[in-house]
Amino acid sequence: MAPAGAIKPTGTWNLGTRAGDYIYIAGMRGIDPKTDTLIQGDEARVRQAFLNMKLIAESEGATLRDAARLVVYVTDMFRFRPLVNKIQSELWGEGPYPPRTIIEVHRLNQDDIVEVEGTFFAPASKPASTRANAGAR
Amino acid sequence: MAPAGAIKPTGTWNLGTRAGDYIYIAGMRGIDPKTDTLIQGDEARVRQAFLNMKLIAESEGATLRDAARLVVYVTDMFRFRPLVNKIQSELWGEGPYPPRTIIEVHRLNQDDIVEVEGTFFAPASKPASTRANAGAR
Amino acid sequence: MAPAGAIKPTGTWNLGTRAGDYIYIAGMRGIDPKTDTLIQGDEARVRQAFLNMKLIAESEGATLRDAARLVVYVTDMFRFRPLVNKIQSELWGEGPYPPRTIIEVHRLNQDDIVEVEGTFFAPASKPASTRANAGAR
Repeated sequence: MAPAGAIKPTGTWNLGTRAGDYIYIAGMRGIDPKTDTLIQGDEARVRQAFLNMKLIAESEGATLRDAARLVVYVTDMFRFRPLVNKIQSELWGEGPYPPRTIIEVHRLNQDDIVEVEGTFFAPASKPASTRANAGAR
Repeated sequence: MAPAGAIKPTGTWNLGTRAGDYIYIAGMRGIDPKTDTLIQGDEARVRQAFLNMKLIAESEGATLRDAARLVVYVTDMFRFRPLVNKIQSELWGEGPYPPRTIIEVHRLNQDDIVEVEGTFFAPASKPASTRANAGAR
Repeated sequence: MAPAGAIKPTGTWNLGTRAGDYIYIAGMRGIDPKTDTLIQGDEARVRQAFLNMKLIAESEGATLRDAARLVVYVTDMFRFRPLVNKIQSELWGEGPYPPRTIIEVHRLNQDDIVEVEGTFFAPASKPASTRANAGAR
């Protein structure tokens, strides 16, 4: 999965994959897809992490409302959880919000501050009855 | 998802969501649903975290035996892993137990000690053959 | 799930479980299934963690290419992430690689260095139409 405008993986991992009706997206950080470097500023960095996830989800037909699980890794609960809440309010509006787990870890890659991992539910196909009609399974 | 008797989310997250045949539940901690404050006592706290998860799973028709994955976050592996094992023995009896990953993290929200995140498998519907007869897809 | 040649769970958890079309595998570490003790040597230890996961996945008909999500927990990002990349190159070759999240945690069980948690997509069955014909489920 390598949608236009997405960041480029730099190692032995992929941005995301569709598996049946679910989209699994790798942990996203606040990397600027234009330069492949970290966005400056904590709030902007956190926003970009979510936007990077959003772009990948949308490339497979999902919206943020289709998130079935978020795991948010921060390196300082007190400093960064409020920023995560703020950005999620901005992006999800009045909700509903997805189930979320947020934990403070010891370190992220590149000594980054926030990483967000999303699992999305986005059925790829119509119900079986209409699929059968389409005749293309 | 906001079943009767469950804790109340206090931020930009939801207790859980059904996505197809799976139930994704947010990381649960030992919060007393009656008072929305942390349960006192380590063992009681850990038990309540699991009970909070159980209540949400059951509200969607799943039992603890339907857990497909548990991720348990503790802030002290040596102190709290034995408590987690004890509570799981209590709740799952002789098993079978779900696959589990347990890690020691740097900090949890509210400086809590244990958080448990569960993914459950609970098909929402009958097999396709009987569903077709029901005529309601 | 207890395939031949796999490590033995020592507590209130199972190696893995199939839930519908997905296989959920517990966090695997570099334990030698022959002796149930940790493999010596960092690189060999990391390789064994992945091999332990691979064996369980294969017992349910999945290959490493069917991994939909990996979460890798290390206790030192700088020391162990390169080893994880190396082992994944070895095992996945030119890829494609699965989506991965890698975080540095405070501690793993037995003070281990790396743990890998995999979720695999491996549809258990043929489409319903052919299943009915096969008549043997």
